[in-house]
Amino acid sequence: MRIVLICKYDGTNYHGFQIQSNHLTVQEVIEKSLKKIHKGLDIRIHMSGRTDSGVHAYCQPIHFDTHLSISNEGWIRSVNAYLPKDVRIIDAINLGNSDFHVRFNSVEKTYEYKLFIGRYVDPFLVNYVGHYPLKFDYNKAKECIPYFLGTHDFSSFCSKNSSIENKIRTIHNFKIEQSGNLVTFEITGDGFLYNMVRIIVGTIIDVAHGKYDKEYIKYIFQRRDRSLAGKRADASGLYLKSIKYDNKLVNNFLKNNI
Amino acid sequence: MRIVLICKYDGTNYHGFQIQSNHLTVQEVIEKSLKKIHKGLDIRIHMSGRTDSGVHAYCQPIHFDTHLSISNEGWIRSVNAYLPKDVRIIDAINLGNSDFHVRFNSVEKTYEYKLFIGRYVDPFLVNYVGHYPLKFDYNKAKECIPYFLGTHDFSSFCSKNSSIENKIRTIHNFKIEQSGNLVTFEITGDGFLYNMVRIIVGTIIDVAHGKYDKEYIKYIFQRRDRSLAGKRADASGLYLKSIKYDNKLVNNFLKNNI
Repeated sequence: MRIVLICKYDGTNYHGFQIQSNHLTVQEVIEKSLKKIHKGLDIRIHMSGRTDSGVHAYCQPIHFDTHLSISNEGWIRSVNAYLPKDVRIIDAINLGNSDFHVRFNSVEKTYEYKLFIGRYVDPFLVNYVGHYPLKFDYNKAKECIPYFLGTHDFSSFCSKNSSIENKIRTIHNFKIEQSGNLVTFEITGDGFLYNMVRIIVGTIIDVAHGKYDKEYIKYIFQRRDRSLAGKRADASGLYLKSIKYDNKLVNNFLKNNI
Repeated sequence: MRIVLICKYDGTNYHGFQIQSNHLTVQEVIEKSLKKIHKGLDIRIHMSGRTDSGVHAYCQPIHFDTHLSISNEGWIRSVNAYLPKDVRIIDAINLGNSDFHVRFNSVEKTYEYKLFIGRYVDPFLVNYVGHYPLKFDYNKAKECIPYFLGTHDFSSFCSKNSSIENKIRTIHNFKIEQSGNLVTFEITGDGFLYNMVRIIVGTIIDVAHGKYDKEYIKYIFQRRDRSLAGKRADASGLYLKSIKYDNKLVNNFLKNNI
């Protein structure tokens, strides 16, 4: 049976989601919990997408296969029982005999980025926002949105460490809102390259600061050169927010949890 | 010259405020910063009150004496420059040649306690709330307030480790409010004994759960026996919120920062 769990986590204390040999990751703590439930049997989980060290998730769907017959409510309770408190399973669904895959069946993802503008970050927000201490023109930031919407080659907005060949992605929606010291970016697309959201935010920071004009974004796209775009913004401001699939059952299940 | 700084901190990574030999404390990181500013000279700071391991502060006034002539703005900037990001100096005032003491001149303190009711704490709130997973009747909690208001011997609501003789304190104000899963307690008094707020919250949890009737609080007070009151609530939910002094200048200075 294929089980899908929705995982919500504060990424502060983790070296990202995907398992690593020398560092604590979210995948490791979930697989450890599942191993206990399966009495020592190793259970491999699949994630909807990697998140980097310090990046958070409101909704990270994962799946795994099991022979155990446990209710959805039972999965939530038992997996949480062995998890650290900064990682929580918020819902579970049993898809039965299904080949649904939380990564390959996704058609749309939404990320949120929280940026704190000001000399000092509030000490209670340090791990939960990115920080920009200098001049930031919110209206100039908003004017960048049209340059990113639609289908583009995002080579300039992707970490050089990425091994993915096809760098064409489509951005469906992009909102920027301000409330006090906090600027929130919400970006939805069919998929995202490695560090893509953080580099887009970093580039918009450059425009909002006045380092270059918004028209320069066109040139950055054209040149397909990572070094032209802005620095990647801090990991601590990034949140995986929601995902859509080519599967009605799973989409309805996810909708109840946003 | 006597300088008063207002310090705001996320207590998660600290073993409380007061300096300890084997553990990192807020006092230690502030004194280290001041030592750097004073080119190696040890500067002893005084705090308005201790906070325990994991307890937070929106407003913890501290003072120290210095021969350096630095503007208020300069103190904020320079002390913050050497502090970790989860501890911030939010304001500074130079009292000149004054014997004002942030602890001995205080006449009133306010603490806030945030309690999360529900099976699982939101992973982003783990370090910022206390947790109660069982039945909690908010109205029963509110009905406890009158039992604590006014002047009482708080021996039953004080850690056994306290060495203070006089356990009589006066509570001036006590509010309990609910918003979704979060219950917020705000308690103001002339002073608080060791663990007093957390034991009061723990006792109210017992009444709200139905373990005993609110009238039993009278009996707990009368017996002056710590073992009769509730468990102390989690440190992570407690915030030192504000302080009043017998000094108009300092009070006006503090008012600007709340």
